[in-house]
Amino acid sequence: MTNRPKTPLLDRVNTPADLKAFSDMELRQVADELRAETISAVSETGGHLGAGLGVVELTVALHSVFDAPRDKIVWDVSHQTYPHKILTGRRDRIRTIRQKDGLSGFTKRSESPYDPFGAAHSSTSISAALGFAVARDLGGDSDTGHGDAIAVIGDGAMSAGMAYEAMNNAGHMGKRMIIILNDNEMSIAPPTGAMSSYLSRLYTEAPFHTLKDAAKGAVSFLPEPFREGAKRAKEMIKGMAMGGTLFEELGFSYLGPIDGHDMTQLLPVLRAIKARAHGPILLHVLTKKGKGYEHAETRPDRGHATAKFDVASGEQKKSTPNAPAYTKVFANALIREAEEDSRICAVTAAMPDGTGLDLFDKKFPSRCFDVGIAEQHAVTFSAGLAAGGMKPFAAIYSTFLQRGYDQVVHDVAIQRLPVRFAIDRAGLVGADGATHAGSYDVAYLTNLPGFTVMAAADEAELVHMVATAAAHDEGPIAFRYPRGEGVGVEMPERGTPLQIGKGRTIQKGSGVAILSFGTRLKEVQEAAEKLEARGIRPTIADARFAKPLDRELILQLAEEHDGLITVEEGAVGGFGSHVAQLLAEEGVFDAGLRYRSMVLPDIFIDQASPEDMYAVAKLNAEDIEAKVLDVMGIARMSERRA
Amino acid sequence: MTNRPKTPLLDRVNTPADLKAFSDMELRQVADELRAETISAVSETGGHLGAGLGVVELTVALHSVFDAPRDKIVWDVSHQTYPHKILTGRRDRIRTIRQKDGLSGFTKRSESPYDPFGAAHSSTSISAALGFAVARDLGGDSDTGHGDAIAVIGDGAMSAGMAYEAMNNAGHMGKRMIIILNDNEMSIAPPTGAMSSYLSRLYTEAPFHTLKDAAKGAVSFLPEPFREGAKRAKEMIKGMAMGGTLFEELGFSYLGPIDGHDMTQLLPVLRAIKARAHGPILLHVLTKKGKGYEHAETRPDRGHATAKFDVASGEQKKSTPNAPAYTKVFANALIREAEEDSRICAVTAAMPDGTGLDLFDKKFPSRCFDVGIAEQHAVTFSAGLAAGGMKPFAAIYSTFLQRGYDQVVHDVAIQRLPVRFAIDRAGLVGADGATHAGSYDVAYLTNLPGFTVMAAADEAELVHMVATAAAHDEGPIAFRYPRGEGVGVEMPERGTPLQIGKGRTIQKGSGVAILSFGTRLKEVQEAAEKLEARGIRPTIADARFAKPLDRELILQLAEEHDGLITVEEGAVGGFGSHVAQLLAEEGVFDAGLRYRSMVLPDIFIDQASPEDMYAVAKLNAEDIEAKVLDVMGIARMSERRA
Repeated sequence: MTNRPKTPLLDRVNTPADLKAFSDMELRQVADELRAETISAVSETGGHLGAGLGVVELTVALHSVFDAPRDKIVWDVSHQTYPHKILTGRRDRIRTIRQKDGLSGFTKRSESPYDPFGAAHSSTSISAALGFAVARDLGGDSDTGHGDAIAVIGDGAMSAGMAYEAMNNAGHMGKRMIIILNDNEMSIAPPTGAMSSYLSRLYTEAPFHTLKDAAKGAVSFLPEPFREGAKRAKEMIKGMAMGGTLFEELGFSYLGPIDGHDMTQLLPVLRAIKARAHGPILLHVLTKKGKGYEHAETRPDRGHATAKFDVASGEQKKSTPNAPAYTKVFANALIREAEEDSRICAVTAAMPDGTGLDLFDKKFPSRCFDVGIAEQHAVTFSAGLAAGGMKPFAAIYSTFLQRGYDQVVHDVAIQRLPVRFAIDRAGLVGADGATHAGSYDVAYLTNLPGFTVMAAADEAELVHMVATAAAHDEGPIAFRYPRGEGVGVEMPERGTPLQIGKGRTIQKGSGVAILSFGTRLKEVQEAAEKLEARGIRPTIADARFAKPLDRELILQLAEEHDGLITVEEGAVGGFGSHVAQLLAEEGVFDAGLRYRSMVLPDIFIDQASPEDMYAVAKLNAEDIEAKVLDVMGIARMSERRA
Repeated sequence: MTNRPKTPLLDRVNTPADLKAFSDMELRQVADELRAETISAVSETGGHLGAGLGVVELTVALHSVFDAPRDKIVWDVSHQTYPHKILTGRRDRIRTIRQKDGLSGFTKRSESPYDPFGAAHSSTSISAALGFAVARDLGGDSDTGHGDAIAVIGDGAMSAGMAYEAMNNAGHMGKRMIIILNDNEMSIAPPTGAMSSYLSRLYTEAPFHTLKDAAKGAVSFLPEPFREGAKRAKEMIKGMAMGGTLFEELGFSYLGPIDGHDMTQLLPVLRAIKARAHGPILLHVLTKKGKGYEHAETRPDRGHATAKFDVASGEQKKSTPNAPAYTKVFANALIREAEEDSRICAVTAAMPDGTGLDLFDKKFPSRCFDVGIAEQHAVTFSAGLAAGGMKPFAAIYSTFLQRGYDQVVHDVAIQRLPVRFAIDRAGLVGADGATHAGSYDVAYLTNLPGFTVMAAADEAELVHMVATAAAHDEGPIAFRYPRGEGVGVEMPERGTPLQIGKGRTIQKGSGVAILSFGTRLKEVQEAAEKLEARGIRPTIADARFAKPLDRELILQLAEEHDGLITVEEGAVGGFGSHVAQLLAEEGVFDAGLRYRSMVLPDIFIDQASPEDMYAVAKLNAEDIEAKVLDVMGIARMSERRA
């Protein structure tokens, strides 16, 4: 506590309205104090650092010029909102961020009226802001009156199709709304794609505006009437810089680029926009991720996400892993397969590090494709690669694959193209919370005809599943694996293709059978150990495949036991539902079967440690133990006592 | 047969290679004959007419210049490929199109090697073509050698984000590939959005090129080395026309616009591209939907889709409907609600006619939003409207809502925003086949916490569900209804909100209960009539809600009957799976219950009449009857005889 920075001005800010009392000079100091406070807070909690540091001045400027919550500031992705949270009445809880019962690491409507729209996935802000702008003009927001709609979006997020869809629509509608393009040339990985190059050209070919230019441009860029004004403004801006022709073609008035760390540019430009804007405006702001904290600025990822750290040295306090991370196991297994098969290639949607494909890229740069934040394209591009004779592995987090669902159905499944889906972050993910949970992939893939769907029970299984996918040319195949470390099993040198649609028996027992799909197997085994003490020995099997189902195994388990419990890290509609459908069709329920399906509960689970989240989900060893006892008609000791 | 057009040159074309023997003048005649043949064929079968007529010359030109199937011509949406099918060995079956066991109305890999990538949903072609281009350069397509990758995409399809994602990626990669932008200012509805305005400006401000200009431009637009050439070409094209700056900023060489019905422009430009192209090229071609057939050209939709018709008069042979179409019932019910509540507004993604929102738009133009082919944006824009205090109805076909799935999860469900989803074309859809089937919405929505999911059993129920959705402010709500006509029930003047999560009993019986979700109820009732003749009277209930489930009703049905059968028009993972989960959790299976869940089968069902498709799906009255008898342990008469 004694190491906390001195923040005399910031201490006077409880809500953004308090910023109105400060002079421009004082606002600069507020920004400095806010930066120090952000660094101090994240050093204690870990979390997203670089993005927040990059928008400290922008956050102060926006909140001092505009009037939240009447004005709706929609932060894209919103991992850059720690400074925003500090300014909007949440400073007292900022050191609980991303922790159980603490602040979310993202904006969240239920957390604060200053968060008008939650986020976490990228590129949604323009659509949401347009919704606010239209609702305002229709009188929908009668409680809070007519405020401005402002989207703050990074350059990386501009590669996503939905940002373009929203601009295309907003430019057409012509309503007053403001997009702040926060251009730091860096989202998580350096952004890729033609749009990114375009933005670079915009500012490398044009110097920063001077204050005088910027103020002059901003004040005069939209005189009425709008249409004539836009034409004149266009010429004026062209005189000032290369001009954002592309945005203008889409119907936006483009202004910029300006220095996003210079309050003497930000404040007058934002004030002019507030006073004069008539239609859709795009303000191009240049910032530096990690700005003002040397240890972030100099890291390759600009301090994107960090563990707790020492402020002075920048040294992170990381615990030593016990086993290799699933992501890395996947990457190494894929590299091993690719060494033997030149048709194997890999596709990521702007997550080379997160998916481990950065390792693959080092080995096989010509066979690795980062398509940008563009999951729809990633899936269909992979389908095209497969149709062209390649063996593409599309490595996409479970939650982000939702973005490409139609493409999975329409371009991959219907055409039976052998695209391999490596589905990382399947199941609950911890500090990122509900928005990043991989809860639905099993359900939304298993009902697609011709799909093969696997889940790895441990990191060795993952290696075999990579080999299985590499060998499987008959149609689409997916394998899912969780965030974090493996369980520490012995690793094979190379994977061996599994027999499609065949599970494995882990232990033979009697009475009750537990059929696990995926990484809850370890918990199942722990539950079995606890049950052993009571003289109960359940049969345990690992399904490996949710599709095609191992009919023989399942029907045999049902026949040989009084009870059958399925366990998975996914919502209803997935593995358990397919097992139930099989059992129903085969008439197994007719004579009675103590069948239960343990799935993720019907709630969005807030951020916490994965362990805590699984406890909420009732998918831990003790929950499985309880379910077995329940099925056997035995209450647990603890319940008996109660 | 006697009325078929004379096609002496076309008769000599069995594969595109046969076109190589013709002179340019003869190719013009081939195009004329192909147009006549297309009109003649569609007059007999019905189907998509206008789009195909618009690309007759382009189809002939592409196939005479390029070498399919070595060169991969990827048609976007592909309802414009009837002429392509006629030229590629399928003329003998063209009069079976969209019929059971006939040609598909879209491209289909399994149908022909000349269809390298199937389609039906829009805007996938650039991603797929880029996949082919990359696969070619990696040596993936070793059987067929190194061909060109060509995407033919309409201007309407350019509003979809995935087209932008693909261009952004393709422009960055710089590989040789060709996009033909088929600009007819008309997809199904007139396209909307800033991109559309941009394209209009491109050609209204520039006259068509003369042959000399076009040939000169094409031949010289890409001299080596590429980068210098591109700059020079840019200047040259700017001299010729306003220039496709936007596409150039994204890394494409832009050429055009040229007249897509003038073979003397198409042939030399395509030949030059084939001979000289180095990186990604966009050729802007202007065409007229319905071109060359007066009765199509003069229709408001330019003959988009048609019933069988008389060639001379253009008169369509439509059967008289027995009951109002669900789409129209929805639109009128929504209008009725909107008259009472000014916060109700409506969003469509480029389907104003298909969703009935054209009717809504006439009444409430300021509250109706066509956002273009942009389902991702449509969903999050609706979420923004809801967050801004409006009551948005997002009317999207089941199959297209897949495009916005992540937005449904991330922006709507997690935030519990009261977006109303009107899900048209739910279930099997007939002639459009597998790509348009609405099979997955129940599964992919019911596992989202806080969602309310309804299905209308008939058109009167739909009216009540619109009222229910209008009144439901507590979170997201969806209601699904099928393509086609209602069943002819009496219609209420206005809907009455249903009690959330409560089903209704249709008839009391004994032995077996049938719990229907959605429009199979009519078949269930027909099955019951057949069973009545055998002295069997099942209980029948209409669940109305798949979420929240009517626990009381379901548990009571299970308790009071030996058998329980659920029926729905959806894949495993939906209504039946949630019922099974409930029954399992409640221990209902423990003592035995003859439970069955009738769902769509695990196959993609090819086009046919809806009746035939339901027969394949085994969801007709006779299938339900058979299931009841099976559950009761009684074989059907027909089976006994056999």
